[in-house]
Amino acid sequence: MIKKIYVLGAGAVGCYFGGMLARAHQDVTFIARPQRAKALNTSGLEMDCKAFHETIQVKASSELSTLKDADLVLLSVKSLDTERMLTEVKSILPSKAVILSLQNGVANIDIASKIISNPVYAAVVYVAAGMIGQNTMKHHGRGELLVGKLSTASLADETLQDICKLFEGVGVPCSIAPQIKRDMWLKFLVNCSFNAISGIGQISYGEMVKSPYIVKLIEEITKEFLTIAALEDVKISLSEALAANDSIATTMVTQVSSTAQDLAKGKMTEIEFLNGYIVELGKRHGIPTPYNESVHALVKMMESKIR
Amino acid sequence: MIKKIYVLGAGAVGCYFGGMLARAHQDVTFIARPQRAKALNTSGLEMDCKAFHETIQVKASSELSTLKDADLVLLSVKSLDTERMLTEVKSILPSKAVILSLQNGVANIDIASKIISNPVYAAVVYVAAGMIGQNTMKHHGRGELLVGKLSTASLADETLQDICKLFEGVGVPCSIAPQIKRDMWLKFLVNCSFNAISGIGQISYGEMVKSPYIVKLIEEITKEFLTIAALEDVKISLSEALAANDSIATTMVTQVSSTAQDLAKGKMTEIEFLNGYIVELGKRHGIPTPYNESVHALVKMMESKIR
Repeated sequence: MIKKIYVLGAGAVGCYFGGMLARAHQDVTFIARPQRAKALNTSGLEMDCKAFHETIQVKASSELSTLKDADLVLLSVKSLDTERMLTEVKSILPSKAVILSLQNGVANIDIASKIISNPVYAAVVYVAAGMIGQNTMKHHGRGELLVGKLSTASLADETLQDICKLFEGVGVPCSIAPQIKRDMWLKFLVNCSFNAISGIGQISYGEMVKSPYIVKLIEEITKEFLTIAALEDVKISLSEALAANDSIATTMVTQVSSTAQDLAKGKMTEIEFLNGYIVELGKRHGIPTPYNESVHALVKMMESKIR
Repeated sequence: MIKKIYVLGAGAVGCYFGGMLARAHQDVTFIARPQRAKALNTSGLEMDCKAFHETIQVKASSELSTLKDADLVLLSVKSLDTERMLTEVKSILPSKAVILSLQNGVANIDIASKIISNPVYAAVVYVAAGMIGQNTMKHHGRGELLVGKLSTASLADETLQDICKLFEGVGVPCSIAPQIKRDMWLKFLVNCSFNAISGIGQISYGEMVKSPYIVKLIEEITKEFLTIAALEDVKISLSEALAANDSIATTMVTQVSSTAQDLAKGKMTEIEFLNGYIVELGKRHGIPTPYNESVHALVKMMESKIR
């Protein structure tokens, strides 16, 4: 039974899904930096969503020790922080606690599983959202989850069924994905296609693809990605990949990427886990990835500029 | 004899070299858009240079018809405007008039020579400067010229000797380059290495190269460039090319590129004549140029964003 839910990392993704749970009176605690925890406790979580605009009373804390009674942990810190964060909570989490990673990239599950023995499930998240204040989350569209297990066939997994029921019960579409690794790579693909470029140009997905040069650049990034994916045993056809890219550009027209949001806020981005990871895998496999390398280098430059 | 000098295009380059001539009482007229011409006529040209800070009385006009008595035309419009501008002045310029192109890229001399029959000489310009007001030019460093003729050996060319004497006489270091095509390509190289990236990041040359990812990206852009250059009969070694890049990063530390300046002002850039030209030549020769293509695409996106 999932009773005590913790959101580890109260960014836009954590606040959207944690907020949906809290709004439906689930027992949710947000673990956040002191300033955000204080704002959430004092003023509640303002959810400025497509379907509603409400301020929800929520519990928040910056004390990791509160995690000691966790049933479910929604892991929504930046990929950059996965290793450090799980190392810190390792001795606190009870053995019954289940972790669901809502993060970008394809490296987090492996990183987490190496640190802790709790089961780590994967969620592929499609939501357009951003924090526009300490306790205000702005939702631009979508908000569905695909959940699964990397290791074995997962349709009959009871924990996954519980997680799905939990989310479905609060109005978040959620399905169990029999091939979650492939779904993660498809999401990873669109992150590689859109995040860096949107960040470099501080430009929305809809605006980006108005430039034929960017459409071509995305296609080249995608081709390199698919070569690497195949070497990692993930087969995605070019037409399927381009359709996935297209669907982002058309369902999240006004969205700017989390990379763009991070750069605008003067924060480090997840680029090492996006195009940077493709470049790294390319080196490992001896495959050149010049297009991914170019956008990766430019995002690194933007990061170094703000430090 | 060079008496009547016209500066066609009163941007930073035109104002620096035209200003140096005017300051030494040469007969210089700046051809500019009405607003700038008015400012120059009314308030003079403010030259905020490394060695001095003076406001020089100058003549300016937005009437192309004034070019009818020209001996020397310093062509300093953006490469984008070469074709249109020379088509417009074609019937006005006297046959005695000599044109000296102070422009970026390697395509302007050919473009100009196809339109007009006047002799067109090439100048390779190294100057760090920018317009910081309608009539104010800020000079950050350097300011020397290499001049030559694309067609044949040019050391004995009298016109070139006159041009050199003219500039040397007003304190502008100027030499005749026996291999001007090669010098143009070396300048073109550093433009391809620095302009786009500085523009994308709105970042100075010195800051850019602090990022090891950018140093690597510049090296890859350079390798593609050298492959194309060789196919265009210009042999430059990698070590010579990297040394040329280095010298820019160290002699123009605080400079941002003209591409960065254009984007910041909401203007079209010369990118089609820089990395875009390498991409075009790559297609013509069947050589992939992914690094140049990436930065070209991103600058095109930045341009489309500001329109």
